Amino acid sequence: MAGNPVIREILNRYVPVWALGHSMSVLGWDTETHMPVKGAQPRGVASGQLAMMSQRATIELDGLVRKAEKAADLGDREAGIVRVLRRSIDYYLKVPPEMVDELQRVTTEATVAWRSARKRSDFGMFRPHLEKIVALEREIANKIGYERHPYNALLDLYEEGFTVREADAVYAKLIPESKRLLKRVASAGVYPTKHPLESARYDTGAMLKVNEEALKLLKMPMDRFRMDVSTHPFTTQIAQDDVRITTRYEGKDFRASLYGTIHESGHAIYGLGISKALAYSPLGDGASYGVHESQSRFWENVVGRSVEFVELIDPTLKKYLPFVKGYDTAQLYFYINTVRKSLIRVDADELTYNFHTAVRYDIEKKVIAGEAKVAEIPSLWNDTFEEYLGMRPKNDAEGALQDVHWSGGSFGYFATYTLGNVIAAMIWHKMKDGALVHEALRKGDVTELKNWLGKNIHRYGATYSPKQLQEKAFGESYNPERLLAYFEQKYLP
Amino acid sequence: MAGNPVIREILNRYVPVWALGHSMSVLGWDTETHMPVKGAQPRGVASGQLAMMSQRATIELDGLVRKAEKAADLGDREAGIVRVLRRSIDYYLKVPPEMVDELQRVTTEATVAWRSARKRSDFGMFRPHLEKIVALEREIANKIGYERHPYNALLDLYEEGFTVREADAVYAKLIPESKRLLKRVASAGVYPTKHPLESARYDTGAMLKVNEEALKLLKMPMDRFRMDVSTHPFTTQIAQDDVRITTRYEGKDFRASLYGTIHESGHAIYGLGISKALAYSPLGDGASYGVHESQSRFWENVVGRSVEFVELIDPTLKKYLPFVKGYDTAQLYFYINTVRKSLIRVDADELTYNFHTAVRYDIEKKVIAGEAKVAEIPSLWNDTFEEYLGMRPKNDAEGALQDVHWSGGSFGYFATYTLGNVIAAMIWHKMKDGALVHEALRKGDVTELKNWLGKNIHRYGATYSPKQLQEKAFGESYNPERLLAYFEQKYLP
Repeated sequence: MAGNPVIREILNRYVPVWALGHSMSVLGWDTETHMPVKGAQPRGVASGQLAMMSQRATIELDGLVRKAEKAADLGDREAGIVRVLRRSIDYYLKVPPEMVDELQRVTTEATVAWRSARKRSDFGMFRPHLEKIVALEREIANKIGYERHPYNALLDLYEEGFTVREADAVYAKLIPESKRLLKRVASAGVYPTKHPLESARYDTGAMLKVNEEALKLLKMPMDRFRMDVSTHPFTTQIAQDDVRITTRYEGKDFRASLYGTIHESGHAIYGLGISKALAYSPLGDGASYGVHESQSRFWENVVGRSVEFVELIDPTLKKYLPFVKGYDTAQLYFYINTVRKSLIRVDADELTYNFHTAVRYDIEKKVIAGEAKVAEIPSLWNDTFEEYLGMRPKNDAEGALQDVHWSGGSFGYFATYTLGNVIAAMIWHKMKDGALVHEALRKGDVTELKNWLGKNIHRYGATYSPKQLQEKAFGESYNPERLLAYFEQKYLP
Repeated sequence: MAGNPVIREILNRYVPVWALGHSMSVLGWDTETHMPVKGAQPRGVASGQLAMMSQRATIELDGLVRKAEKAADLGDREAGIVRVLRRSIDYYLKVPPEMVDELQRVTTEATVAWRSARKRSDFGMFRPHLEKIVALEREIANKIGYERHPYNALLDLYEEGFTVREADAVYAKLIPESKRLLKRVASAGVYPTKHPLESARYDTGAMLKVNEEALKLLKMPMDRFRMDVSTHPFTTQIAQDDVRITTRYEGKDFRASLYGTIHESGHAIYGLGISKALAYSPLGDGASYGVHESQSRFWENVVGRSVEFVELIDPTLKKYLPFVKGYDTAQLYFYINTVRKSLIRVDADELTYNFHTAVRYDIEKKVIAGEAKVAEIPSLWNDTFEEYLGMRPKNDAEGALQDVHWSGGSFGYFATYTLGNVIAAMIWHKMKDGALVHEALRKGDVTELKNWLGKNIHRYGATYSPKQLQEKAFGESYNPERLLAYFEQKYLP
């Protein structure tokens, strides 16, 4: 992969780090899918040990990476290796292990407290935990260092180089325009706000068959991929040739299971498309959380919720889900594309989803800057939510307590969901405002879509920063106009 | 666990080694059960890396272990820790990594060659590979060092302290007596040599239910245990609270699936019974291959193939396997206990099994000592087999090519199968010549058997060497008389 001898040495010495990462992925996958419940405690010990070994081995690369940074003639891949390793090394060097341990300890307790607090809709129960987490996150931001805004340090952990200024610009465009759009869609009255199929109950075995057929439509390579069940669906890239997703079966509203499967398959298609030449290297992962989410959103929404895809999956639905038989394809399409304001993020449709991330982004930015106190979060949440969506949560369970993320210390994450939506629409735009998608689906073959994504995005892995990658693929980055145009075309044709 | 400060430090520094072992177990389990096929290559790289890290971390304990070895006042556990670590450290120090790599490389190729060779029943195809393996095994024996016989070095890898002299003594008693017994059993004519149920085909889903009911009869704790499917059944102890077995479904002769499940459950009961105080330490595994096999054989044969157990499982068999309905419990008992000489080890019954290991033991002893050449193995095999069992393989596929073990470099392993049978019978003897087993099963509750094994064997983990453990539990070790007495009682009452 590398002509530069220092890079070659780095790559050799990276193999153990890769192996530890591979192993941690398998342990994580097993924990969520098959592990007997009492295996949790030793699993925690083992994962912690492997994480420490991996950190130590990464930090040990510092000297070599320094050497490589002085080299003038690095190719794109070589530069990418240096860039990605520098980010990890700096993080491990700047954030002391005691702080990482402390965050681990605090978030473990906070997650337990959050569960009870949400159940009783009592933010007060969660507040002291969240205060500790926010204090730690602010300290981490200081340790990492930042320009202009402390929240930039945290945004960068999930989306390299992404800043408050850019996020503000995305939301400043997206929020008011989406509000206007939402009104027009509502008054057009084409898309329903609810559908009788939402309460129809399915059999898990039958739903598994539907999902397996969806995997066939997506041409998932079953010798390199598998699907299991877990409480919270996820994708894990164990190796370039071993990517796994999970889905869930709640027993009703089959959209959730089907589109969860397609969403995770989108992540998986990314992982499976990364060049084999990047195996065992620091470049074998995706470019960022935002870019990864763009792949899942592209397949879930742009592909999966299109008329053509609904036509493709319709016979399968009718075969396995008896209650679908009375509905024609158009009716199914509208079930799959209801548009309604809701208080809960995970229930949100394409059009309203970004309001939810915006509320969280606003709040995180303020508390990390010290401009708002944790105690103020519930009222901030409710006020902002009302401003954006014209609805007000009746309690904290359906307000500031709804997500697990904060209890786990994930500050800086939520915006990447919206970046995913934005970048997915940038792909849609590049695919001739979706014409390529519709063509491919009318032929019933997604191969060309996969090839396009493989060529323009997947194969590079983490070679380029998310911005470099977007500039290369689209000639622009994080452009919310594309998402608005996509909405216009879909919802107001 | 330890009062001695050096031992405490050893235990602290052992946690990463434990974590690597835990991870390798999960990787191994996943490889055999769920991994997409193309995940094999990266999995091999990852496992190799973890093994190297584990070796390095183990060797690094040498200085501390040396220190501990000088301490005079070690308790049993502390002495056990030192003993077990000394064994690993010495192995890694004496056998150079290049030799381990070479064996890895040679056995990988040999396993592929063996598969084709067995298919074509052509020992010549396998011979050059086996020659390399034998040469390496002899070199390893020399590196490890031995008294009297080079094969002792290899036997000790699987059964600590077990020697050619002891093995010879076991077989010298077992083989002629078993021959006599077998003749008497045949002429008594009570146990059949074949049974119509052997060809009855079952449905995999139904057989899974049968196995799950068997797990319930064995009171397997499903919060600490699970069962999956793999080509070759195995047990893996991922942690004290996470032990997993696999079984297989070949579609006919349901004994194989049911008794495979019970066999592996026996291994699992051992792992699950090791004291929690030994978690994360070098003592958290079983005492030896022989002792481990005694647990699986005890549950499979002494418990599982008893009249009382057949009575317990009978209603389940009739519920799920329609073809069983025409057979009463006595007939089922005889199906489960057919006695017949056969050419294939894995098809052998209790009475004839040890002949099979004896053939392999004789051959291994000779080739490792340089008293026989690899090229002579097929004729040696056929002659010895004929001498022991009065049958002669028609070809090498049903002769010297039948087992995978040699292609994987497992020289010194086969005898432990017989040690397992012997020790299982020693347990039977201590349980009042089986009276405790029959009593417990008549009550339909194996708890007392588990408690007995837990108290006398399981809880100690690897604290004692297999001989120490046997002396403690039975006041004797590797006594083949007990197995012969068990046979007498069962087959010639």
